[in-house]
Amino acid sequence: MNQAPAKVGDRAEDIDTPALVLELDAFERNLRTLADSVKGRKVGARQVRVRAHAKTHKCPEIAKRQIALGAIGVCCQKVSEAEALVDGGVADILVSNEVVGAKKIARLAALARRARIGVCVDNMQNVVALQASGAKLDVYIELEVGMRRCGIAPGQDAVEIARAISKSPHLKFAGLQAYHGRAQHMRTIEERHAAIEGAAQHVFEMKRLLEKASIPCPIVTGAGSGTYMLEVEASAWDEIQPGSYIFMDVDYAKNEWAAPLPRFEHALFVLATVMSRPAADRAIVDAGLKASSVDSGMPLVWQRAGLNYRAASDEHGVIDIAPGAQAPALGEKLYLVPGHCDPTVNLYDWYVCVRNGRVEALWPITARGALN
Amino acid sequence: MNQAPAKVGDRAEDIDTPALVLELDAFERNLRTLADSVKGRKVGARQVRVRAHAKTHKCPEIAKRQIALGAIGVCCQKVSEAEALVDGGVADILVSNEVVGAKKIARLAALARRARIGVCVDNMQNVVALQASGAKLDVYIELEVGMRRCGIAPGQDAVEIARAISKSPHLKFAGLQAYHGRAQHMRTIEERHAAIEGAAQHVFEMKRLLEKASIPCPIVTGAGSGTYMLEVEASAWDEIQPGSYIFMDVDYAKNEWAAPLPRFEHALFVLATVMSRPAADRAIVDAGLKASSVDSGMPLVWQRAGLNYRAASDEHGVIDIAPGAQAPALGEKLYLVPGHCDPTVNLYDWYVCVRNGRVEALWPITARGALN
Repeated sequence: MNQAPAKVGDRAEDIDTPALVLELDAFERNLRTLADSVKGRKVGARQVRVRAHAKTHKCPEIAKRQIALGAIGVCCQKVSEAEALVDGGVADILVSNEVVGAKKIARLAALARRARIGVCVDNMQNVVALQASGAKLDVYIELEVGMRRCGIAPGQDAVEIARAISKSPHLKFAGLQAYHGRAQHMRTIEERHAAIEGAAQHVFEMKRLLEKASIPCPIVTGAGSGTYMLEVEASAWDEIQPGSYIFMDVDYAKNEWAAPLPRFEHALFVLATVMSRPAADRAIVDAGLKASSVDSGMPLVWQRAGLNYRAASDEHGVIDIAPGAQAPALGEKLYLVPGHCDPTVNLYDWYVCVRNGRVEALWPITARGALN
Repeated sequence: MNQAPAKVGDRAEDIDTPALVLELDAFERNLRTLADSVKGRKVGARQVRVRAHAKTHKCPEIAKRQIALGAIGVCCQKVSEAEALVDGGVADILVSNEVVGAKKIARLAALARRARIGVCVDNMQNVVALQASGAKLDVYIELEVGMRRCGIAPGQDAVEIARAISKSPHLKFAGLQAYHGRAQHMRTIEERHAAIEGAAQHVFEMKRLLEKASIPCPIVTGAGSGTYMLEVEASAWDEIQPGSYIFMDVDYAKNEWAAPLPRFEHALFVLATVMSRPAADRAIVDAGLKASSVDSGMPLVWQRAGLNYRAASDEHGVIDIAPGAQAPALGEKLYLVPGHCDPTVNLYDWYVCVRNGRVEALWPITARGALN
């Protein structure tokens, strides 16, 4: 683990760079905005549950704050992420993903002796392997609802999987995982609405088939930051899994944010230093590909009109300076909003938590690099 | 630091995934191919020196093997990388980059008391700051030779910087850093040749200006894996800085490899597991954006005709299966060649070193995440 780039009490301008800066006021407002937006929203007689996605933040400190505001637990995508979160004190985790391979299933089984653990399946062979581990697990069937990644379509094969889980002495059939990842980044609210309506039809169809087979379906879980209120309004989901809402990145900010979704604020930044001013129209910063993931586009220079982060190489970012813009000086620090928050967080060991221009806390990203 | 995904002696098929696998036979052939290709090549009366770039591997174990085969030391891009390499036993490091900011310069100065340290400048203000630190440093002027990133153009301003360094009681003017990064990935050898010829003209012009000013220029250093023999043949460089040759990635493999450059082999792989087989024409693997950097394109499925890694999300890769191709089974492991090796290595804590199907060693990537 690398040394933290600041100490508690440091002024923000003295943080060494590149650094991952969390603006606590904006972050806390995002936490509350999410909690408020689902308060009192019911599916049938039950309050909609929040199970925040920890793949975004990879940090027990953040998970605990989500739980304190009402989340019933978190999701992870990897067993090793779940291990880091359980080590950090989180007691209820859904691995919202398939876990395949003897070593990984053995680790999942060990974890299920320390915390409540859920996992997804989309294949009977995987159910047999989970069953053979002897682990006490909540098992969800991952339903294909339009993402075309993992998942099984509603139908008799899925019913047979649910039946096999239900009959297992150790496993519990916990319900359906129904996440439409592609819908999250559709730009207009109408497109997202249509996608989630389509996903809901898959969920309803599967629930009908399960009911016909007399297999109770306790929970339908899914949804992300870009759509979760659409899932709530569709009345097919009992539980939502938003992750990115705590930070907001450039890609999510390109979405149309309109009712029924609330607005979230940018709370996560890459702090960078201008390390070269080779020309009047160009500044080079010390944050490139290894400091900000560019898979969903370049970072945005925050609140500096006319500065455009144009290109990233491994350790450098090239910023074009528009005519008339206030040019940054050598050594000046700039705040960048990452293009995509999850893989950007995965590059860092520490959140440098800032309030009113001072470092208030340093939170270790203990599930950073938790790949397997 | 995450747990290693294997133990020494494990069979390769039992490595947990995703894992970064180094095939030692291919890696060692690459090391020797580079060393052999410059053997006996002189600039004036002196043997061309190899200063391998450690930004690629971030690992003292690899640096030591490069030095054992003749490299005089390594380059890094960040002070924290250099710290990790010095901690690992490397005694001669050039930070082939500008170091800006009081905290970083203080760390560089501390490091220069433990090892021979070089650094680049492109700005007089930075020379003044380095000088004020009291550090004993080899200082190189970074010359703009066509990359349009950092660097100063040949001219009187650059001569004045060289003069200021020469007059400093602590700093030593060590020469010129002249690296044409864009040239590395030009696909035809003719394009690369023309780019390096152009870069050489900038170097010769700067050397003439320094000679006129009676400022000795001990070393010209630069060049990468895609061009280094062109720099050697241009007779303007005394020292080369290849990095990626040890691994080869998909992007470099797209280059035309022809004389005077030797051929290198793929030695670095991301080992992935098929975690879902949702359709006859699709397999999902457990290695996505957090396991392989896609900034230069998707990974390649190694030696499996008809399998095409089409899309990456954070923790998943989507592999299309062509009609008639041998489809991978659930749980099967696939070797992926990363699109871009440097930022991919930066996602891992361990090289799992394999020879003849067995894990021979585990090398910690101690400069992983060394961002500042």
